[in-house]
Amino acid sequence: MQNNPLKEIMNPKSVAMVGASGNPAKMGTLQLLNIVYGGWGGEILVVHPTEKEVLGNKAYPSISELPYAPEMAMLVVPTRLVPDMLEDFGRLGTKRAVIITAGFAETGDGGRELQARILDIAAKYGMRFLGPNCMGIINAHAPFNATVTPLQNPPGHFSLASQSGTYAAQTLGYLAKRGIRLAKAISVGNEASIDLVDCLEYLGEDPETRAIGMYIESIRRPREFLDAARRISRKKPIVAQYVGGTAAGARSGSSHTGALAGPDYVIEGLFAQAGIIRASSIEEVYFLGHTLASAPPLSGKNIAVLTNSGGPGTAMADTCERAGLSVPELPPAVQARLRELLAPHASVKNPVDLTFHIDMDLLVETLPELLFESDAVDGLLVHGVMGSGWAELAHKVFEKAYGFKKEDMIKGFTRDLSRLTAMPAKYRKPLLVSSFMDSATDSALKSFQQAGVPTFDAPEKAARAMGALWAHAGVRARHGDEVRLMQTPAKAAELVQNTAPDAWDEHLAKKVLAAYGIPVCREMAAHTADQAMDAAREIGFPVAVKALSPAISHKTEMGLVHLSVADEGGVRAAFSRIQEQAGPVPVLVCEMLPTGREFLAGAVQQPGFGPVVLFGAGGVLAEALGDRIVRMAPLSSFDARDMIASIRSQALLGPFRGMDPVDTDALAELLVRLSHLAAHFPRIREIDANPVLIKNGKPVVADALFKVS
Amino acid sequence: MQNNPLKEIMNPKSVAMVGASGNPAKMGTLQLLNIVYGGWGGEILVVHPTEKEVLGNKAYPSISELPYAPEMAMLVVPTRLVPDMLEDFGRLGTKRAVIITAGFAETGDGGRELQARILDIAAKYGMRFLGPNCMGIINAHAPFNATVTPLQNPPGHFSLASQSGTYAAQTLGYLAKRGIRLAKAISVGNEASIDLVDCLEYLGEDPETRAIGMYIESIRRPREFLDAARRISRKKPIVAQYVGGTAAGARSGSSHTGALAGPDYVIEGLFAQAGIIRASSIEEVYFLGHTLASAPPLSGKNIAVLTNSGGPGTAMADTCERAGLSVPELPPAVQARLRELLAPHASVKNPVDLTFHIDMDLLVETLPELLFESDAVDGLLVHGVMGSGWAELAHKVFEKAYGFKKEDMIKGFTRDLSRLTAMPAKYRKPLLVSSFMDSATDSALKSFQQAGVPTFDAPEKAARAMGALWAHAGVRARHGDEVRLMQTPAKAAELVQNTAPDAWDEHLAKKVLAAYGIPVCREMAAHTADQAMDAAREIGFPVAVKALSPAISHKTEMGLVHLSVADEGGVRAAFSRIQEQAGPVPVLVCEMLPTGREFLAGAVQQPGFGPVVLFGAGGVLAEALGDRIVRMAPLSSFDARDMIASIRSQALLGPFRGMDPVDTDALAELLVRLSHLAAHFPRIREIDANPVLIKNGKPVVADALFKVS
Repeated sequence: MQNNPLKEIMNPKSVAMVGASGNPAKMGTLQLLNIVYGGWGGEILVVHPTEKEVLGNKAYPSISELPYAPEMAMLVVPTRLVPDMLEDFGRLGTKRAVIITAGFAETGDGGRELQARILDIAAKYGMRFLGPNCMGIINAHAPFNATVTPLQNPPGHFSLASQSGTYAAQTLGYLAKRGIRLAKAISVGNEASIDLVDCLEYLGEDPETRAIGMYIESIRRPREFLDAARRISRKKPIVAQYVGGTAAGARSGSSHTGALAGPDYVIEGLFAQAGIIRASSIEEVYFLGHTLASAPPLSGKNIAVLTNSGGPGTAMADTCERAGLSVPELPPAVQARLRELLAPHASVKNPVDLTFHIDMDLLVETLPELLFESDAVDGLLVHGVMGSGWAELAHKVFEKAYGFKKEDMIKGFTRDLSRLTAMPAKYRKPLLVSSFMDSATDSALKSFQQAGVPTFDAPEKAARAMGALWAHAGVRARHGDEVRLMQTPAKAAELVQNTAPDAWDEHLAKKVLAAYGIPVCREMAAHTADQAMDAAREIGFPVAVKALSPAISHKTEMGLVHLSVADEGGVRAAFSRIQEQAGPVPVLVCEMLPTGREFLAGAVQQPGFGPVVLFGAGGVLAEALGDRIVRMAPLSSFDARDMIASIRSQALLGPFRGMDPVDTDALAELLVRLSHLAAHFPRIREIDANPVLIKNGKPVVADALFKVS
Repeated sequence: MQNNPLKEIMNPKSVAMVGASGNPAKMGTLQLLNIVYGGWGGEILVVHPTEKEVLGNKAYPSISELPYAPEMAMLVVPTRLVPDMLEDFGRLGTKRAVIITAGFAETGDGGRELQARILDIAAKYGMRFLGPNCMGIINAHAPFNATVTPLQNPPGHFSLASQSGTYAAQTLGYLAKRGIRLAKAISVGNEASIDLVDCLEYLGEDPETRAIGMYIESIRRPREFLDAARRISRKKPIVAQYVGGTAAGARSGSSHTGALAGPDYVIEGLFAQAGIIRASSIEEVYFLGHTLASAPPLSGKNIAVLTNSGGPGTAMADTCERAGLSVPELPPAVQARLRELLAPHASVKNPVDLTFHIDMDLLVETLPELLFESDAVDGLLVHGVMGSGWAELAHKVFEKAYGFKKEDMIKGFTRDLSRLTAMPAKYRKPLLVSSFMDSATDSALKSFQQAGVPTFDAPEKAARAMGALWAHAGVRARHGDEVRLMQTPAKAAELVQNTAPDAWDEHLAKKVLAAYGIPVCREMAAHTADQAMDAAREIGFPVAVKALSPAISHKTEMGLVHLSVADEGGVRAAFSRIQEQAGPVPVLVCEMLPTGREFLAGAVQQPGFGPVVLFGAGGVLAEALGDRIVRMAPLSSFDARDMIASIRSQALLGPFRGMDPVDTDALAELLVRLSHLAAHFPRIREIDANPVLIKNGKPVVADALFKVS
């Protein structure tokens, strides 16, 4: 982080702009307009071949004629001019740039070459740059706004890093309307030099940033991304949308920023590990991020719902429960106090529903205070506070009927909400507000937004945002989330180094697993029927007898696995049958483990991501059921426990059908060790430990297969 | 439908209002205000004990003094007055009423009694009424608006029936802002006399209604609801939100409208059968319903995405694919034409991404026309059309820099979009627009909304709405969706009538199934070892030998099931072991069916819903995996096929691990027959056919259990 190039880019002392001119329809001009008229106090140097002055700033005819090396350069010029201009800035001594210009890696092979060229130039001069193909940056606190849209709102504490320029730079009106205030916004474009990991690290340290939102089409450095996000998310909430997981999303993203997308389940796993709250839309990125940046954290999951309408109240309660929150019946004492205050047909249990006939004082002062005061309430959702917006809707009818003036109605419906808006800070509990009114006309919405109380245009959204606060409470409370690097066992290294790719069989694979401390079934290889019988006697009957050959991969389907062999005659018969069917091959004699429930554990080298670990319901039905969880290797202890807790087949882990409950600590340890094995040896392309069976509650690998290159 | 009471309620010739007065803060007054000043032309009779005139209408001191029986009466009075007043209207001859007053079944036992009383009164006079505890109705075409909020928008073709008054009556400003126009809105309240089924039937026939939206906390007549919705949804799309499926949602709903909610999975099944598109929020009810009411239907799933920004384009493509749509690469000829028109770094594959530097003519005329013209495009999503809203965001900066006036900028950015807005009708293909601008200030959004082109404040929402159009195309195209009533087989009726509840055993249960034409395994009961051996010989080895006793319900766990018994000695041994363990009991000798994949089929009498059918992955792991689908009985052929197609374990149905693919027609037929059995005999509380095994591709019930009351 010490040398994070975004430090200077987001807060430069001086900026050179190439591409602004007298033409207000040009992108560079628009960006310079917002730098100049946005109130920034730094030095501006304009480069223009013919104009002498641009927007009140002296223009220099070329980069080489600039009076000094600006701390940061912005290029908004035709693609073909970028390399030479970057070189010119490099020669001048400028170390940071924002390259808005498009036409690089996102356009195909020619563009990729050009992008490589500007990277080479930057390397030569020790430069780092944002883009190309980006839309600029915003530092709302400076205020330094190098985008096409003027800032619409005072600065806030929610920051964005986005692979879409639009989401960082062209939604400022949208955000202002919703009361969402930005600290920083970074459009990363093609990420040739500065990428999302740099943004995460920068925003993680930025004192103005309290929550981070991201729009992601692909992740170029997944392991570094995971490490940075995991570290940061413990303190600062991170919300991200990922859209590269479908075929259409991946293809579109590739034309957009020239990056390769990863499968959705891999990103799902990475986000879970990283403590990133996944948003399903850009709207969620904004409103969840805003909430996480603005509201006090949730210290428990008990939510009170206060409403003057049953529908929104029920919808909030329902959504809370789906988000893992609780909307419990309020304590009798609280209900009793509510009952004194409310109409007889109002509901006091929770949701507290005033119904239509209301006293606004109750809704905005007495009841919220009463609920916040209760230890049984960790956070409050309110629907139905209405201010002058009502006048906007109704004034015409009232004027006709009573001669009321709109202005008087607006005044009549405008009220001071400062007691309510002060409560979140006073009680250190979040208050989230749902309202169908319009912030342009409703005084109540304006009051909430000015006070930094998050507002939502639908009850479900407010409840989901409360769910995000709870999700982040879970991230903060994680234990064992450090990856403890494991030594490579010498025995494993020796086997992996000395075994030819086509020589890996089940027995060898299990030896490597065992070297990693992963429990495998007791087993012995045998080349003759007599050896097999000796092995069976030593292991103890019943046993399994399997063909042992790296050339045979579907032993069960080929009838080369004999299970529950009960006696010596059975071992001899199994040995003979295997020789008949598979030619002269050795056999593996294994202890029989209890069946009835099976798991699988595995790892693959995922292109573009490195090793990922799989865990799921296993055995014959595994492929049919697809109940699998994926994480990037190596795993923390938390990761492994979280994988186990995330499979749908949770019932398999408990005291299932009279069997012992599974020792999930032992199972987690197995996964952690497997993940280190996968991380240590990229040449093991695939590890398939399937089934993992449960003996006296402990996991034991009954079969294993490696694919090695 | 002939006598649907909503006909007169939604379009009355004359209305009596009790509860309006000179006090504009009263709910009744607000409702009368909107009736009077909303432009309604019908007759209004006001009843008020003291006032002589209310809002320009003569007021009568009591109901009995009204000059004639109004077609409809509205009551907005204290709870205790309702019964007598309803009686007064009944005596007068009024047959329809809207009871706004709350304080009935939603408040508990006392309220339930009062509600029963007003139902009795209504029955005595042949009256039907909406409510109590509702918020009124809107017929925007009349215009007859008996709610507290003035209409904000011209009439449209989307209608609502809601168990929340707020959603029918207090979101009119919210809807207007989003360009959503209503035809009818009905707040159903406690549904004492008129319920959601009546609303569905009324709106199904209503010529102004092209799509129906519903907010639901509970369904009082599930079977009738299903039948009505199934019939209507084939022609008119239905979108519904259900919030009663969580504990918190159910408790809240019960305090709200006094109704009992059903489990989420039952409603999920009911909606699927009914062809109802499920919304996850009230926002989705509105925007999906509006789209379905406004846009031409989708005749194929190929969507073109047109954008001037990569992020929204990628998000739309990703969301389309998640919604079952396709965003295919455009045909080479179309790509070639696009390439001629666009900048070199623009993308022409699909999404078509103009990138930032754009010619607005291209985005709003040339390109949409080119895409609509192509047979490869069934519908179009557009992001990035911007009108005068830009002036709102940027005018201050432009005024400072160039002295531009806001009005001139607004004029400059306002353009005629009529060629684009005419395209959906011209090509009979939907056009959905995503924009981050605000409709209050952006001319483009206004133009779209005025022309009835649906607009969305986020790209994902536009894509989801396109998905809803595709979902409805699927509903329209359903085959075999009629329930063909099945005769009760005489043999089954005889068994069910003549068997005591505690005498049901596996063999009897299978006899009933067999009487319904459901394939069961070959089996014979045996009372002695010799009989068992005779049975085994006749059936053919190997066989299963099981204890046969209604008293024993977990045979497998108790060791009373002997599978794969291979010879006569085995049969004798199994018989003896069973006698040892379970005392003197007969046994059932059954053919052995192939194992390796198992299904379960079943039915239960669901409280408040009647019989529901279950289908899922079966056998030992079934309880752990919970891969089950539920539908209401009896099933149509479509329902049964849809259940089979909906389990997660689809791989089990194909040529799984070398086994034959499952004959899904035969499996569907089994489910249909089972559903009729459950529907015929409510006293069979539970049917559990588990496992259903597959023999030569055909399903056969291997074990069955009935619980009978």
